[in-house]
Amino acid sequence: MFEQLGLIGCGLMGGSFALAMKKAGLVKRVVGYSKSPSTTDRARQLGVIDVEAPSALLAVAGADIVLLAVPVAATEATLKAIKHLVTPQMLIMDVGSTKADVVQAARRSLRDQLGSFVPAHPITGREVSGVEHADAELYSGRQVILTPIERTLTAQLQKAEEVWTALGCRVTSMSPESHDAAFAAVSHLPHLLAFAMMNSITGQSNGDDFLSLAGPGFRDFTRIAAGDPKMWRDILLSNREELLAQSRLFQQALHTFEQAMEKGDAQRLEDMLTLASETRAHWRMGAKRK
Amino acid sequence: MFEQLGLIGCGLMGGSFALAMKKAGLVKRVVGYSKSPSTTDRARQLGVIDVEAPSALLAVAGADIVLLAVPVAATEATLKAIKHLVTPQMLIMDVGSTKADVVQAARRSLRDQLGSFVPAHPITGREVSGVEHADAELYSGRQVILTPIERTLTAQLQKAEEVWTALGCRVTSMSPESHDAAFAAVSHLPHLLAFAMMNSITGQSNGDDFLSLAGPGFRDFTRIAAGDPKMWRDILLSNREELLAQSRLFQQALHTFEQAMEKGDAQRLEDMLTLASETRAHWRMGAKRK
Repeated sequence: MFEQLGLIGCGLMGGSFALAMKKAGLVKRVVGYSKSPSTTDRARQLGVIDVEAPSALLAVAGADIVLLAVPVAATEATLKAIKHLVTPQMLIMDVGSTKADVVQAARRSLRDQLGSFVPAHPITGREVSGVEHADAELYSGRQVILTPIERTLTAQLQKAEEVWTALGCRVTSMSPESHDAAFAAVSHLPHLLAFAMMNSITGQSNGDDFLSLAGPGFRDFTRIAAGDPKMWRDILLSNREELLAQSRLFQQALHTFEQAMEKGDAQRLEDMLTLASETRAHWRMGAKRK
Repeated sequence: MFEQLGLIGCGLMGGSFALAMKKAGLVKRVVGYSKSPSTTDRARQLGVIDVEAPSALLAVAGADIVLLAVPVAATEATLKAIKHLVTPQMLIMDVGSTKADVVQAARRSLRDQLGSFVPAHPITGREVSGVEHADAELYSGRQVILTPIERTLTAQLQKAEEVWTALGCRVTSMSPESHDAAFAAVSHLPHLLAFAMMNSITGQSNGDDFLSLAGPGFRDFTRIAAGDPKMWRDILLSNREELLAQSRLFQQALHTFEQAMEKGDAQRLEDMLTLASETRAHWRMGAKRK
């Protein structure tokens, strides 16, 4: 389907995309670039990329598909760096967890070449990062959200849908703003809560003792708190308005529970717990929207 | 080791204990009672118990070990109901997630027989409940916290340690108050946050759409929100003082994140995220206390 993938950012997300594309026979050659030369070197040693590029621009040279897998705050500088080699035939995608800021960055940097860029967010991740954890199956069975804008070329959007579908993903399109509102609620907020809870415990004098007693519920609840700090710094900042709004709604819900506890209102508490429990018990990951 | 287990409450926790005791060859016969006759009947059909008892008192008759696996708020009434058949040779344990209230209930109800009771909290659970999910391996490899008091008989405490150790658990003893403070932080608070977050999302007009987009991070973070509403109603109420204190500390930590986001203080945010991420990445479930 493609001759050459230009991969910018050879970490978990980028490396896994390269492996998946090769495994599916969708690309012949992967040319990779990472900010850190040791990462690029390691990616080649591991067979994640075929050729090391000395710059982002040179990773794009000759590519017919380009994936940006860099922290979202680096999107604009990266797009500026590659702009002169972007062609209308090229499909460029990112994998960032926020989309309104990525689209803004693309508008500012790509200008006449904006139509080649299809903003993408595959709903997957690991609590570990780095090319060592790259996995050809990371995207398999997951949802991918595309957030095209008015200037996105139809041909590129269709190619993007075909690529992710061929990797075993279910593809959904929505506006960048709808995407960011939804993911503030179901991804960025849970991360924020898990990060804050970890720091709340370690800030207590008995924190280490408490942690030594924690069991499987804590393990699963806090798994996402091990996420990459730089990546999450960028996400929390770039989607802060939606996230702060979700955090306020969450705190209102928390206060409702606290009030019922303070009043000893067992019936109200049970009603609220039943709503939460039934909603979660019936939820299925990736179920089709009504 | 024991002749007869009297099981009061044949749900997930009680049923799993019965299966584990039999599998380990630690008990010959299990006599079970549940408030709902259909549960007791089902437990016998599934081979979880050998004999159905028509009352809690009759489940205790002839037993040398008794396990209470009922919601914590039912502890006092249950102990009162069985008190007349409790002997100094009998080992009585519970599996409740809160311990100060259980000890108070035991003091009020057991009186002269208090020494036979060893309060226990195995750190395990599932997001499902009911005897159908009983599993002989539920306790294997988990921690069990015992919270003996000044009147607990040494012989019973030692027997309790031996039983859980034989089931593959690591046993730790502490005061009921220390237990409740620790589990407010690492178990009850995460549950409260997960419940509140579910209700915060479902309370929004786009809540269903948001949920349809949620991925593996959300799945793991909210797994505990599917917990049994009646069980969690009792836990949230019985440990409410410690839990409300933990909730306040958590909200302070959350506000620190929100302030850094509002100010756009990227360095401070990254520092806080690094602390949380490194703490979680180095945490190991069940690691020995320093």
